[in-house]
Amino acid sequence: MSYEVKSLNEECGVFGIWGHPDAARVTYFGLHSLQHRGQEGAGIVSNHEGKLNGYRGLGLLSEVFKDDRSLTALNGESAIGHVRYATAGNGSVDNIQPFLFKFYDSSCGLAHNGNLTNAKSLRKELEKDGAIFHSNSDTEILMHLIRRSKKETFIEQLKEGLRTVKGGFAYLLMTETAMIAALDPNAFRPLSIGQMKNGAYVIASETCALEVIGASFIRDVGPGEVIIIDDNGYKVETYTDDTQYSICSMEYIYFARPDSNIAGVNVHTARKNMGKRLAIEAPVEADMVVGVPNSSLSAASGYAEASGIPYEMGLVKNQYIARTFIQPTQELREQGVRMKLSAVRGVVEGKRVVMVDDSIVRGTTSRRIVQLLKDAGAKEVHVRIASPPLKFPCFYGIDIQTRKELIAANHSVSEIEQLITADSLSFLSEQGLIDAIGLNYDAPYSGLCMAYFNGDYPTPLYDYETTYRKSLKDKISFV
Amino acid sequence: MSYEVKSLNEECGVFGIWGHPDAARVTYFGLHSLQHRGQEGAGIVSNHEGKLNGYRGLGLLSEVFKDDRSLTALNGESAIGHVRYATAGNGSVDNIQPFLFKFYDSSCGLAHNGNLTNAKSLRKELEKDGAIFHSNSDTEILMHLIRRSKKETFIEQLKEGLRTVKGGFAYLLMTETAMIAALDPNAFRPLSIGQMKNGAYVIASETCALEVIGASFIRDVGPGEVIIIDDNGYKVETYTDDTQYSICSMEYIYFARPDSNIAGVNVHTARKNMGKRLAIEAPVEADMVVGVPNSSLSAASGYAEASGIPYEMGLVKNQYIARTFIQPTQELREQGVRMKLSAVRGVVEGKRVVMVDDSIVRGTTSRRIVQLLKDAGAKEVHVRIASPPLKFPCFYGIDIQTRKELIAANHSVSEIEQLITADSLSFLSEQGLIDAIGLNYDAPYSGLCMAYFNGDYPTPLYDYETTYRKSLKDKISFV
Amino acid sequence: MSYEVKSLNEECGVFGIWGHPDAARVTYFGLHSLQHRGQEGAGIVSNHEGKLNGYRGLGLLSEVFKDDRSLTALNGESAIGHVRYATAGNGSVDNIQPFLFKFYDSSCGLAHNGNLTNAKSLRKELEKDGAIFHSNSDTEILMHLIRRSKKETFIEQLKEGLRTVKGGFAYLLMTETAMIAALDPNAFRPLSIGQMKNGAYVIASETCALEVIGASFIRDVGPGEVIIIDDNGYKVETYTDDTQYSICSMEYIYFARPDSNIAGVNVHTARKNMGKRLAIEAPVEADMVVGVPNSSLSAASGYAEASGIPYEMGLVKNQYIARTFIQPTQELREQGVRMKLSAVRGVVEGKRVVMVDDSIVRGTTSRRIVQLLKDAGAKEVHVRIASPPLKFPCFYGIDIQTRKELIAANHSVSEIEQLITADSLSFLSEQGLIDAIGLNYDAPYSGLCMAYFNGDYPTPLYDYETTYRKSLKDKISFV
Amino acid sequence: MSYEVKSLNEECGVFGIWGHPDAARVTYFGLHSLQHRGQEGAGIVSNHEGKLNGYRGLGLLSEVFKDDRSLTALNGESAIGHVRYATAGNGSVDNIQPFLFKFYDSSCGLAHNGNLTNAKSLRKELEKDGAIFHSNSDTEILMHLIRRSKKETFIEQLKEGLRTVKGGFAYLLMTETAMIAALDPNAFRPLSIGQMKNGAYVIASETCALEVIGASFIRDVGPGEVIIIDDNGYKVETYTDDTQYSICSMEYIYFARPDSNIAGVNVHTARKNMGKRLAIEAPVEADMVVGVPNSSLSAASGYAEASGIPYEMGLVKNQYIARTFIQPTQELREQGVRMKLSAVRGVVEGKRVVMVDDSIVRGTTSRRIVQLLKDAGAKEVHVRIASPPLKFPCFYGIDIQTRKELIAANHSVSEIEQLITADSLSFLSEQGLIDAIGLNYDAPYSGLCMAYFNGDYPTPLYDYETTYRKSLKDKISFV
Repeated sequence: MSYEVKSLNEECGVFGIWGHPDAARVTYFGLHSLQHRGQEGAGIVSNHEGKLNGYRGLGLLSEVFKDDRSLTALNGESAIGHVRYATAGNGSVDNIQPFLFKFYDSSCGLAHNGNLTNAKSLRKELEKDGAIFHSNSDTEILMHLIRRSKKETFIEQLKEGLRTVKGGFAYLLMTETAMIAALDPNAFRPLSIGQMKNGAYVIASETCALEVIGASFIRDVGPGEVIIIDDNGYKVETYTDDTQYSICSMEYIYFARPDSNIAGVNVHTARKNMGKRLAIEAPVEADMVVGVPNSSLSAASGYAEASGIPYEMGLVKNQYIARTFIQPTQELREQGVRMKLSAVRGVVEGKRVVMVDDSIVRGTTSRRIVQLLKDAGAKEVHVRIASPPLKFPCFYGIDIQTRKELIAANHSVSEIEQLITADSLSFLSEQGLIDAIGLNYDAPYSGLCMAYFNGDYPTPLYDYETTYRKSLKDKISFV
Repeated sequence: MSYEVKSLNEECGVFGIWGHPDAARVTYFGLHSLQHRGQEGAGIVSNHEGKLNGYRGLGLLSEVFKDDRSLTALNGESAIGHVRYATAGNGSVDNIQPFLFKFYDSSCGLAHNGNLTNAKSLRKELEKDGAIFHSNSDTEILMHLIRRSKKETFIEQLKEGLRTVKGGFAYLLMTETAMIAALDPNAFRPLSIGQMKNGAYVIASETCALEVIGASFIRDVGPGEVIIIDDNGYKVETYTDDTQYSICSMEYIYFARPDSNIAGVNVHTARKNMGKRLAIEAPVEADMVVGVPNSSLSAASGYAEASGIPYEMGLVKNQYIARTFIQPTQELREQGVRMKLSAVRGVVEGKRVVMVDDSIVRGTTSRRIVQLLKDAGAKEVHVRIASPPLKFPCFYGIDIQTRKELIAANHSVSEIEQLITADSLSFLSEQGLIDAIGLNYDAPYSGLCMAYFNGDYPTPLYDYETTYRKSLKDKISFV
Repeated sequence: MSYEVKSLNEECGVFGIWGHPDAARVTYFGLHSLQHRGQEGAGIVSNHEGKLNGYRGLGLLSEVFKDDRSLTALNGESAIGHVRYATAGNGSVDNIQPFLFKFYDSSCGLAHNGNLTNAKSLRKELEKDGAIFHSNSDTEILMHLIRRSKKETFIEQLKEGLRTVKGGFAYLLMTETAMIAALDPNAFRPLSIGQMKNGAYVIASETCALEVIGASFIRDVGPGEVIIIDDNGYKVETYTDDTQYSICSMEYIYFARPDSNIAGVNVHTARKNMGKRLAIEAPVEADMVVGVPNSSLSAASGYAEASGIPYEMGLVKNQYIARTFIQPTQELREQGVRMKLSAVRGVVEGKRVVMVDDSIVRGTTSRRIVQLLKDAGAKEVHVRIASPPLKFPCFYGIDIQTRKELIAANHSVSEIEQLITADSLSFLSEQGLIDAIGLNYDAPYSGLCMAYFNGDYPTPLYDYETTYRKSLKDKISFV
Repeated sequence: MSYEVKSLNEECGVFGIWGHPDAARVTYFGLHSLQHRGQEGAGIVSNHEGKLNGYRGLGLLSEVFKDDRSLTALNGESAIGHVRYATAGNGSVDNIQPFLFKFYDSSCGLAHNGNLTNAKSLRKELEKDGAIFHSNSDTEILMHLIRRSKKETFIEQLKEGLRTVKGGFAYLLMTETAMIAALDPNAFRPLSIGQMKNGAYVIASETCALEVIGASFIRDVGPGEVIIIDDNGYKVETYTDDTQYSICSMEYIYFARPDSNIAGVNVHTARKNMGKRLAIEAPVEADMVVGVPNSSLSAASGYAEASGIPYEMGLVKNQYIARTFIQPTQELREQGVRMKLSAVRGVVEGKRVVMVDDSIVRGTTSRRIVQLLKDAGAKEVHVRIASPPLKFPCFYGIDIQTRKELIAANHSVSEIEQLITADSLSFLSEQGLIDAIGLNYDAPYSGLCMAYFNGDYPTPLYDYETTYRKSLKDKISFV
């Protein structure tokens, strides 16, 4: 329906609260601040004294919960919620979370952010044993594992399940008596715990959701941890000791909101630092620095500050949704593109512009923006990317599953420079990125996952192994 | 439906094109870039070889033209369009423009941006003489004047009408054989002419609409001018010689898009200059400059550049629409507020912040943002407003018609400082504003209208005279 | 969107009430029982102590007033409402009634059922004099005449207007202090007065609306009458003495609900009598009588009773709306037709069927139904039409404005018999129809309008004279 | 949302086709003719060369398939579809059928009409063994049984499942290579096979669906039968020999469309015969016979024919949907009732009326209709019910699961007569009903299920046994 400025997609966002009289409404507020993590669908499961109710639908949160009645119906003191990102094709409400399971002996809500690497084989195994799945999502698998476990308690059954699934995952469960969160052994995906003034505990994919509801930050969930929250407070347990930090670096670069902190590092600050480092690594003589709105504004201001070149608003994003109909002519299509992003002639005309962007995926967007700037009279356009070249797919929760989509997988920097018609092009170095973020975990890359840049995956790839091997031979043709 | 960051409203935007095979689609693109000027409703009237068709509806452009069919039905080589701003109460489709009049002998489309100061008395006079009005808007009046004129040609009838109506207006008409634009004798409202590569002439409220459709700028429409565009090209005529430039300064400060130029001055650049001048007029020792998104980012970056204090993203605006349901408790209401705008704790905590905003209307929003920043740990919040205090109503097309809404009308700067709980507060001076914009017309205030700041109205007020006199005695109580 | 069983359309229905605490809701109930008179749009104007409010929209009543809020907003003790029928092309909300006019000195609501024969010339005259019309409908004309009248009182201005307009009309007006109804000098269109138990007076197009709201019938409005209802009760005045009853016979045959009485004659009973008379005029040897649902069931049962042939349900109408998409093949199109109407194989197989229908317009529907019955195994299908052949257009409020649409205008009965593939075909005679209805006004045809059958129009045709003369030469080709 | 004339609800309708280029569209037509069997939701699963696609949604068929695209997407040569009836509370799309199961090794669509009597215990057993259910419906159970079966072929697995489930059921399955239908051992629910001219085989709940799509009837599906349709034609197998005909008599009385045949008996004819027999069993001196529209018109015409009393249209049903808002006063509520059904004063005034209805459930509707007739002036109202008194719940697919809803369960005929304020009341006898339908299977009641009348259930009640025993002690209080 609309021209996407960026074709990277996050897998989802989760939010939960235990112990608030308006749990579903607070969850609505929390999810709203996580909407950037998923726009395909949204849902909430509430818990009123052990009785679970759910509501979910396709579209933005504000479309799913169009009137107050749907929220009012979700009464209860606790709730979990989920926003899901858009993929083509499987846009069925069956896949919208949280799932609400009603058994003869109990009920359970389940939400998930991430991607399992052994989902396909686990599913096949379970189906051979009579299991029936009702969605395409990986999420359901965990519940089948729990229900088939011979362990005695729910927590033990859950831990057994968590040891069986592989990949990147942040689970949030609502049972009749507790809210439970669990993170993968690498902490690929972010997940934090907070507390409201009334004592209610909160779990959220990003800390911006804590701020929005006025909760204070307690701690991040660590790799291999299970957090159990009930009327007695919160308890931290682990399901495995075989852990190692590999926090998704793309969360810092592009996905997370600038007002979130991940592992104690503010995202805006990290981005500004990337821009500063980039100014040192790849200086250029120019009249102004321009950021691609909105995700690159922090990096651009960092570049400007470190380089001493003034920061200007050379690109303007239209805040209103553009419906791009099928356009009969190429000329109209080009105009459709400009509905989303405009270059400011009055600013860039006759000027040498440093255009700062956070990353390059296919390169088509970069080329279009360079063109917009030149059409508006920019004399030179120097593209500076505040992250290293994206060359490898991700299997832990970001929607790049083939190298075909990645221009840097098959082209050198100077080839890309030409393809996007830039006067010069530079990327941030890997070490520059690591330093700019500034984690210091005792783990490779200071605790970051850098796999999309260098192919160094921190875990086995299981079901994706073959796909990945094949993808190394993919050639992309740049259009 | 939602918490408004700013309660100032523009009266509308107009766009027209003559001589393009996809006139209605191009008009759609143009209007989309003017959507910030009005969100209540939108419409397009197209002209196919003298046959006029129209479509209009309530809501955003993308809601009114939900599918391609409505645009396809508007066939023709010429079209005019309109976006209308939202006011409470009269949200009827009857008021959505362009109006399309079908007479036994001809048809005519009519769109309007502005506000007439003698509408009420003209309407009463016309009704006494048997006229029937079908909308609440002033716009219809011009057509009644035209139809009742004894002049011989349509252009003469129109000019007579234009001499009769008073106030701020930018009219756009589509007759069967021409597209006609007309501007008030003070050029209160902006209006520009452009041309596409295929030769089609374009009229638009702001030049950003020209950029979006790839048209080049020809000239601004001047005060008292009538522009007649037909298959022979464009012609400039005048309906009065009694003209004087009084361009609305709020267009530069708040309304217009940063990528537009008005009277040759780029709006972003003007705003940045306001910020720079403000840094000189009202310096303060601080750790960072933070702009209120999105309208104050230019001024904030100017302040940062001139003061040498780093510019940081201390406030984040959620790009997704927040539906704020009726909230049962004050606590939930407060959270609802944060859904639109968040302070970035990781950036502002423990810091002295200069918060730059473009203007203060009621003051309630400023107080809330100061509070957001303090809640997120800001040590000091120094508010700097990049325009002079708003003290007087506007009768030329901006929706401030009573002084009751204006905190500065009844409070001194130091009182406002206290009311919004700022550590310090300063406004830009009137001369600072005039210099920052930098017009140099031979007219008071170099050709700007400064009436909202100093009550110096460039024209008689007609029907509003009494209201205005009364309003001078209004007291507002700050809540 | 859907296969229409009958292509005759009524012009509208009106309903009004004066003096009920829930006037708008009662009007909703009343209009719902008149929905068969118009499905394109609906509206209500209410009057609360002199303050008029209106709401109108496209679609069925239940779609326009989707939630209770729209009705609740229409507060007041009095209200008038309107349902409008669907015509192609001018489906704009501008044409939906009641119109609500707001003048500087007063307000007025106006609704209309009927068709003016001098609308075009009146409109042209008024426009030449500076009047501006905002809808395509004739209705607005009356208000222009009132506002331009030099008479002293509103009632005198109205009467002058009523003497100026020509044709078939039933007007309903809501002023700030009274509800006023007026009927044309021939009483073409039905209009009745009733009273609720609480004393509230009611005006409605059909008496079924009185029954639905529990009102008792007082009297029909007579030709040339103006009914003025206010807080002092109701008053009958006249605006002309030049009157003559010419009640639309198609109201009895097809349009009106069977539970309505017109001029004291029950519609179901009239239809049953038509069927009885038809059985006498056109007997046939057969096994069963089958009516075309729903409008022909009364006539069919009359035919069965008079002939002694058993009445059977040989045709079933699906009560659910059928959406007939564009069908790729002829086979699928045929199936689409059957979605609306099915022949009952278990009933008609091997049988000789008398198929009774109320009228034949184009003949295509009749042919299809004959075919349905034969496909289901009927041995013979004898078509009996309970009215005379339709040969001439109507200009008083029924949507047949050209003879091209009428199969009987250009084909003899035996030709039609062949065209619709019936084994035999007979129509009711004109005298049979008059006797079956049984009016006894001292006027031609006992007070009925029979013009569509015999071209004997009871008034001059004014603007339609030329069209009509031309139409007499029209040839239709039956498809 | 609306006042229901009858509170009996059918459980669903199914339709399937194998071997037609537009399978989904034909299924749409078929389902449309079965819409009376369920209005809560609808869905279609299509099969294109072994690839299954599905679409389902809440609401009427025309709402679910609002545009042609949803049907076009369901490409393939075969399809099954389902319409589901409305119950309060569980209106989730999760329960809308056909279910589409996608396994690692195959896909399967499943639709169901009926009710299982051992669903609860089967579900509990399966869940204990690790099964996860995703809907509230019984339907899913069969698929779990199939997937857990140790039998070798799909057909053998299915047959084992069919022997495990108990109650009334008509299943329709779409595998990648075949369409399969199965009926319960008592043939409670109707199911027929037909064939289109192009050779395509069709399965439908009622024969009216065959007529609509132009298919010829082949045979009814018998008790205990499995029908397998694939590219080689159709094959009849059985999964049990322990069968006995107990066809639901309420299908003849109320549910089925009059143009359907069940077990070779036309439904309209059966109803007419019930009316004739009723006239003999319960004669009364009166002026007219009036049927309650629409379901009782056949019986009423039978009563009229046998008694010689004229059949009149004394009650009229409004064909337009009535939205009954929450009405502030009792007076308005009463008017709301009349929006659906009106008595015809012009017909019944001063007359002795025989009001024929098909059945009485709670009695409230009967009382209201008697009142409507008396309000319209009927001198006497003699109620004649064309079926025996409903005294017992149904567990095989009709929505009467408690005796509390049944007035005849706790009141004698003369008590009911008084409660509904009738001048006299009679029911058809059980033998009268059996004779009127005229089946002659070698089974109790000639092959009909008469359990709702006499409590003689043809099978054990399994999970319902306890509920049923308790319900025998229920007392209803008539309101």
